[in-house]
Amino acid sequence: MPELRRDPIIGRWVIIASERSARPSDYKIPEPPPEDVSKCPFCSGNEAMTPPEILAYYDPGRLPNAKGWWLRVIPNKYPALKVEGEDDRSADGMYDRMNGIGAHEVIVETPNHFETMAEMDNKRVEDIFWAFRDRMLDLRKDKRFQYVLVFKNHGRPAGATLSHPHSQLIALPMVPIRVMQEMKGSKAYYEYKERCVFCDIIHEERAVQKRMVAENESFICVTPYASRFPYETWIIPKTHFCHYESIKKGDITLLAQMMKTVWGKYRALLKDPPLNLTIHTTPMRDPETPYYHWHIEIMPKLTHVAGFEVGSGFYINSTPPELAAELLRKA
Amino acid sequence: MPELRRDPIIGRWVIIASERSARPSDYKIPEPPPEDVSKCPFCSGNEAMTPPEILAYYDPGRLPNAKGWWLRVIPNKYPALKVEGEDDRSADGMYDRMNGIGAHEVIVETPNHFETMAEMDNKRVEDIFWAFRDRMLDLRKDKRFQYVLVFKNHGRPAGATLSHPHSQLIALPMVPIRVMQEMKGSKAYYEYKERCVFCDIIHEERAVQKRMVAENESFICVTPYASRFPYETWIIPKTHFCHYESIKKGDITLLAQMMKTVWGKYRALLKDPPLNLTIHTTPMRDPETPYYHWHIEIMPKLTHVAGFEVGSGFYINSTPPELAAELLRKA
Repeated sequence: MPELRRDPIIGRWVIIASERSARPSDYKIPEPPPEDVSKCPFCSGNEAMTPPEILAYYDPGRLPNAKGWWLRVIPNKYPALKVEGEDDRSADGMYDRMNGIGAHEVIVETPNHFETMAEMDNKRVEDIFWAFRDRMLDLRKDKRFQYVLVFKNHGRPAGATLSHPHSQLIALPMVPIRVMQEMKGSKAYYEYKERCVFCDIIHEERAVQKRMVAENESFICVTPYASRFPYETWIIPKTHFCHYESIKKGDITLLAQMMKTVWGKYRALLKDPPLNLTIHTTPMRDPETPYYHWHIEIMPKLTHVAGFEVGSGFYINSTPPELAAELLRKA
Repeated sequence: MPELRRDPIIGRWVIIASERSARPSDYKIPEPPPEDVSKCPFCSGNEAMTPPEILAYYDPGRLPNAKGWWLRVIPNKYPALKVEGEDDRSADGMYDRMNGIGAHEVIVETPNHFETMAEMDNKRVEDIFWAFRDRMLDLRKDKRFQYVLVFKNHGRPAGATLSHPHSQLIALPMVPIRVMQEMKGSKAYYEYKERCVFCDIIHEERAVQKRMVAENESFICVTPYASRFPYETWIIPKTHFCHYESIKKGDITLLAQMMKTVWGKYRALLKDPPLNLTIHTTPMRDPETPYYHWHIEIMPKLTHVAGFEVGSGFYINSTPPELAAELLRKA
């Protein structure tokens, strides 16, 4: 059983995947597998190579776990957390632990190995965002879970082990520390200013136009003022919404449009860079609040220096966000 | 002038190195330079290739910036922050910024390109730790600085651009957010328990012996209970000390011994892994406290997944710290 352990100093929970127990030789970075799509478990026709699907969007008449889908959600074959088990917290000497319960799912975004969001029809990109919502709403029914972390690792240096386009989600029995810090910080801002910090960011960025990458009726994409990473961008809904899973149909259309635009810009400017994407949303058990605003953070992985920065929490970014925005706007 | 910018949501300061203004092509990862020591600016004989030294330990009779040293501290040729300038904080629209003032120095640990801490005499490793102290005490005289971050990036994947053994320090006009979180967390623990959390960790780890890597009269090395990274270790002084720069002579000897031991274990077990090392210490303007305890965190960089984890603050570690400690103990 994997285990969740709490750092006693700052309260950060970490998943210790004790079943895998990776030994030193397991960290040899393997050669990228050849692009033999006949062996790709996410390709159409290879459905039997994955665990049975949790959700699929498909043409009428198709049988479960067969061809004919355009999006498929499956359990991760090597899950970081396990669905079975009790949410039992306990002491371990002076420390705090709990069973590594949770869900770890893979959203296969397309049956086609070589198609990315830039090439997909808008409708198909919309379905990726529908799938995130559908899975969040379903996982919310499980009272043990407190947060659903949706993320995408694209490219090997960003942690993707398979190149077939996919996203992942992890349902957690607690709220991750970064989310707690954001909730707390944005609450403090609200208490002082009586305004949502994200709504203020939207207002500021639309006024100064220095860090805008793209805008449509419902979303803006900006390079954040204190960007940690070169070419980091955030996609933020222009109206105040706390919970991603409450997203409306019209907004999904516009979010897909924005995502396609931004993905295309990254490809044009940075030549398909490795990147990480995460949805930041209000914890699902929390009520609507006036201070937290869901958004998507996209972090291209162009540099090698994350280790020191992870250790210190201190980032050095050698591309000013104003320059990044200008180049992405033109791309 | 580089700039320091504050994230308005969680209050994280980031260095924006606006002078370099790296464009997309600057992030192409260059081929490692050939090991032509005649071109290494840190090698003995090449002193003219660096800015004039700030500090050196050397044999009697040597001229400044000439051969005959065994440790040399120089300004970073491409500093993330600049020493000149005022500590002027100001608003930038809704955001907060300040001039990128600070010091960025390189500690060249040895004149010999191919010698690491594992091979060096204990006395010579002691001098590295003396240099950290000497520079901290000197930089403390500059009232603009609030924190000195000492770190070492070893190996290209950990962010080292030159392979000649060296460490770095950055003097900052504010306390990094991670340090503030640690101060706050350890203070909360102290207020609840009336004990230092680090002193408790030492007691616990010595009692259970499951995560001990090494121990001497003054230091322990453990794999932390909630390790973020495979084979992460912390070196902690066994007696309660807040500020690294107050370290005593006898303890420097024992710290050097411990560092050599741990470095040797990493080399034996993980074949000279890329790693990041940071000293975590009480901010230099803060008084002695009963709750914070300086220590060293060592993070081997064996996996590719930092991006997502940086974004979410949520770590997945597939090597249980008990296994890591066992293998490091035996190494």
